[in-house]
Amino acid sequence: MPTADTAYSRLEERFRRIYALEQATGVLDWDRATMMPDGGAEARTNQLTALEVTCHELLTHPEVGDWLDEAETTVTSDPAALSDWQRANLAEMRREWRHASAVDASLVAAITEAEGRCEMIWREARPNSDFEAVRPALQTLLELTRQMANAKAEAFGCSPYDALLDGYEPGGSSAEIDHLFDDLAVFLPGFLSDVLDAQAARGEAETPQGPFPIEAQAELGRRLMAAVGFEFAHGRLDVSHHPFCGGVPDDVRITTRYDESDFASALMAVLHETGHALYERGLPGDWRLQPVGQARGMAMHESQSLLVEMQACRSPHFLAFLAPLAREAFDGQGAAWEADNLHRLWTRVQPDFIRVDADEVTYPAHVILRYRLERQLLDGALELSELPAAWNDGMVALLGIRPPDDRLGCLQDIHWFSGAWGYFPTYTLGAMTAAQLYQAAEESLPQLSESLREGDFRPLMQWLRETVHSQGSRLSGDALITAASGRSLDPEVFKAHLRRRYLDA
Amino acid sequence: MPTADTAYSRLEERFRRIYALEQATGVLDWDRATMMPDGGAEARTNQLTALEVTCHELLTHPEVGDWLDEAETTVTSDPAALSDWQRANLAEMRREWRHASAVDASLVAAITEAEGRCEMIWREARPNSDFEAVRPALQTLLELTRQMANAKAEAFGCSPYDALLDGYEPGGSSAEIDHLFDDLAVFLPGFLSDVLDAQAARGEAETPQGPFPIEAQAELGRRLMAAVGFEFAHGRLDVSHHPFCGGVPDDVRITTRYDESDFASALMAVLHETGHALYERGLPGDWRLQPVGQARGMAMHESQSLLVEMQACRSPHFLAFLAPLAREAFDGQGAAWEADNLHRLWTRVQPDFIRVDADEVTYPAHVILRYRLERQLLDGALELSELPAAWNDGMVALLGIRPPDDRLGCLQDIHWFSGAWGYFPTYTLGAMTAAQLYQAAEESLPQLSESLREGDFRPLMQWLRETVHSQGSRLSGDALITAASGRSLDPEVFKAHLRRRYLDA
Repeated sequence: MPTADTAYSRLEERFRRIYALEQATGVLDWDRATMMPDGGAEARTNQLTALEVTCHELLTHPEVGDWLDEAETTVTSDPAALSDWQRANLAEMRREWRHASAVDASLVAAITEAEGRCEMIWREARPNSDFEAVRPALQTLLELTRQMANAKAEAFGCSPYDALLDGYEPGGSSAEIDHLFDDLAVFLPGFLSDVLDAQAARGEAETPQGPFPIEAQAELGRRLMAAVGFEFAHGRLDVSHHPFCGGVPDDVRITTRYDESDFASALMAVLHETGHALYERGLPGDWRLQPVGQARGMAMHESQSLLVEMQACRSPHFLAFLAPLAREAFDGQGAAWEADNLHRLWTRVQPDFIRVDADEVTYPAHVILRYRLERQLLDGALELSELPAAWNDGMVALLGIRPPDDRLGCLQDIHWFSGAWGYFPTYTLGAMTAAQLYQAAEESLPQLSESLREGDFRPLMQWLRETVHSQGSRLSGDALITAASGRSLDPEVFKAHLRRRYLDA
Repeated sequence: MPTADTAYSRLEERFRRIYALEQATGVLDWDRATMMPDGGAEARTNQLTALEVTCHELLTHPEVGDWLDEAETTVTSDPAALSDWQRANLAEMRREWRHASAVDASLVAAITEAEGRCEMIWREARPNSDFEAVRPALQTLLELTRQMANAKAEAFGCSPYDALLDGYEPGGSSAEIDHLFDDLAVFLPGFLSDVLDAQAARGEAETPQGPFPIEAQAELGRRLMAAVGFEFAHGRLDVSHHPFCGGVPDDVRITTRYDESDFASALMAVLHETGHALYERGLPGDWRLQPVGQARGMAMHESQSLLVEMQACRSPHFLAFLAPLAREAFDGQGAAWEADNLHRLWTRVQPDFIRVDADEVTYPAHVILRYRLERQLLDGALELSELPAAWNDGMVALLGIRPPDDRLGCLQDIHWFSGAWGYFPTYTLGAMTAAQLYQAAEESLPQLSESLREGDFRPLMQWLRETVHSQGSRLSGDALITAASGRSLDPEVFKAHLRRRYLDA
C-alpha cells in the first residue's frame, strides 16, 4: 500500500474504517442471534441502525466521490501507479460507492425502518399462516424496495432487478440467470421422476435411532469442523434458531440447532456453515478491511458451503470416515450406522414444502419459484394479493405438490420480509458453482477421494484457498470460476453431478 | 423532547447516535472478555478503535460546539425553553464535549495505541514480576497521559489530576479527596489493630469444605441474582477472567469466575456485579441514549455494587436467607454452613497484598496508596523507577506488610497500564457512599433488615431506583447523596459502619 498521501491512500483509510465498523455489525448480529436476551432487542436495533447510518455517511461523503474520480484519473493515465490488487480494490470501492450513492439517506432510513417493522410482523404471521396480517407491511417494503431498485437502475444503467441482484452477486444478470434456470426448470421434473423411481427400486435407507444427546452432537460437530480445517483459535460453534455463519474472518462464528431425535440435521448444518467459515477465514489477510479483501458475492459464498457439505461431506468417501465417528459418538448399533446406509439416507430425495429442508435435487425448484415470483412482484406483473396462489401453483408446476397453507408456502422464508430482494438465485448459482469447482478440484487432485476417505481435507482446502479464498474480490465471479475450472458456469456440470450421484449410484 | 428543529434537538440527535455507538462498544468489550477466541483480538482492536475514533469525531465536529453555544444562549435568555431534564442533559453534553475537544485527535490516537501496547506488555510482565519489562511502555503512556491531563486542565481551569478525575467522577476534586482520605488514613491503622484483636478474641470461623461444582455455583448465583432483582430477560451471567458488569442497560451482562474449592469468591462477585447491573438497568429509560441518562460517575456506580454486596448481602440478615440456600446447593453439612459462621467468615479482616481480594477494612488503604502514588507520578514528584520501592514502603506504612515482589505490589492492577489514571479513588468514595446511602435506606425503610432476612430486596431496590438509579446524571454526585441522605458525603458514617460491623459484633 502506498504510504504517500494520495487520493487512493485516503480511500483505503476511509474503507478501513468502514469495514471495521461493518465487522462490529457482524459481531453484534451474531450476538443477537446467539446470546442476546429478548429484552435487549430494541437497544440492539438502535446500535445496528447507528452503525448503518454512520457507514452510509462515511461512504457517501462528497470527498469520497472526489477521491474516486482522482484515483481513477491517475490510474487511467498511469496504470502502474497502482498494483493489480489496488486497481481491483479501487474498482470495488467504486462499486460500493455507486450502491450507496444511488440512494439518498432518507430512503435508506425508510427502508431500514420498513424492514424492521415487516420482519417483526412476519415473525407473528408465519406461525399463524396469516399472510394478510403481514401484507400491508410487505407492500410498503416492496414499494420502497422498488424505489431503491429504480434509483440504482438509473445510476447503473441496468434493470431494477439486476440492480438489486448486484448487491448480492456483483456483475450478476437476470438474462444469464434466466438462461441457466430455464434450462434447469426443463431438466428437473423428468430427472426428479427418474430419481424417485431409482430410489424406490433401491429401497429405504435405515434411520439411526436416538436420542442423540446434544453435548455428544456438539462434540462430533467440533471434531468434524476441525477435520475440515476450522481453527477454534479463530472461531466458535454456538446455537441459534437458524444455522448461520457470522462474525469476522479472524473470528468466524458458526451456529447450528440441535434435535435430540435427529443428529444429521445439526451436523450437516455445521459442515455447511464450516464451508462458509473457511471461505471467510481464507480471504486475503493483507486486504481484510478493504473491499477487494471481501468474499466474491453470495453465490460464491454458497458454493463454498455446498462444496464442503454437499460435494465433499455427503460423498461416499467422506462418509466412510464419518460413519464410525458418528457410531462411536452415539454408541450406535447395527446396519443403520454403516457408511453406505448413511450415504443413502443423507442423499435421499423427497419433494416437500420447505426450502431449507430440501434435498439437493428439489432445492433448485424452490429457488426458481422464488426468483420468478420476486421478479414479477418487483416489476408489478404480480400483485401481493395474488402471491399465495401464485406460489402454490408454482409448487405444483415445479414439484407436483401444493402447500396446504402459507406457513408452508409464501410465508416460510425471511428474505422478502426483511428486504432481501434479489438474493434467492445465489443459492442455486452457488450449487452449480460448487459442482463445477469440485470437478475442477478432482481433476487437479487425483487423490481427492482417497484423502476424504481418511478425513483429510488439507489437499482440498489448500486448492480452495489458492483458487478461490485467497482471491478475495480481485476477479469477477465469472473470471474466478473460469480461472479455477477453465470455463464459465456450465449447467451441464451440475446436471452431470446430479445424474452421477442420484441415478448412477 | 422538542420536535422542532432546534440546536438542542440536533444535539439530542447527535448524542443519540454517539451513545448507540458507545453501546455497541459495550457489547464488543463484553464479548472480548467472555466469548472471543484469542485469534480475534487484532480484529476486535480495529473494531473498537474505529468506534472510538468515530465517536470522537461525531462529538468534536465544529457544528456540535456551535449547537452547544446556541442552545446555552437560548436557555440563558429563557430557562423555560428546556425542561429541567433537558437543561441537565445540555450541561452533561457540554461536559462531554469539553473532555473530547480539549484533546486533539492525534493525541487520542497516540494514547489509544500506547494503552493497547502497554497493557499487552503488562500481561506478560505481571506473572513474571518484571516491572522493568513494562516500565518503558508505561513511561510513554504516562507522558501522553500527562499531556492529556495538562490540555484538559488548561481547558477546564483545574489541576491536571482533577481533569483526569473528572472523567470518572464528574465534579470530583482532589482537595476533597485529600480531606476524606487523610482522615481515613489516620483512622484505619488503629482501627485495624482493634479489629484484629477483637477477631482473634472471637476465634476463627469455619470454612465450608468443597469441592463446589461450577454448575451448582452458577445456579446459586442466578438464584440470588434473581432475589436481588436481576431480570434475565434483560441480562446474562457469564464467565470471564475478572468479574465485571458490561453490556447496556437493557441487556446488562455480568460475569464471575469459579473456583471449585471456594464458592464464596464467585458468589460475592456475582452479588457485587448485580449491584452494578441494577444501577444500569434502573437508569431513566426515557434518557437511555443521552448523557443525562447515564450513571452519575464511577464512585456512585461502585456505591451501588458495594451497597448490594457489602452492606446488604454480607449483613447477618441476608446471610440468614442465603445460608440454607448455599447449604442446599452444595449439600453442605455441619456448623460451617450456619449463617453466623458464614457472616464471620465473609467479614473476616486480614491485611494482604492484593487489592481485589481485600476485605472492607483494609481495602481503603490499598486505594489511598494508589491515589497518592498516581498523583506523585503525574506531577513528577515520583519517577517510575522509584515506584516499586515507594509502593512497598507505602504498604508497610498503611498495612504493616511488605510485598515480596512486584507481582504482589505495583504490577497487580491493570489501571495505570491501560491508561486509567485518576480512577482509583472512586472505589473508596463508593464504599463511603454505599454506607451513607444504606444508612439512609434503613432510616426510610424500618423493615429493611427483616425483608433482607426473607430474601426480599424489593423495598431496598425500590428505594434505590427512586433515589439514585432513576436520577441518571440529572444531579451532581454531591447533590444526589445530599438529596438521598440529607448531607454531603460524611466519612463518619462509613467509620461508624465499620465500627458497628467489626468491633461491636
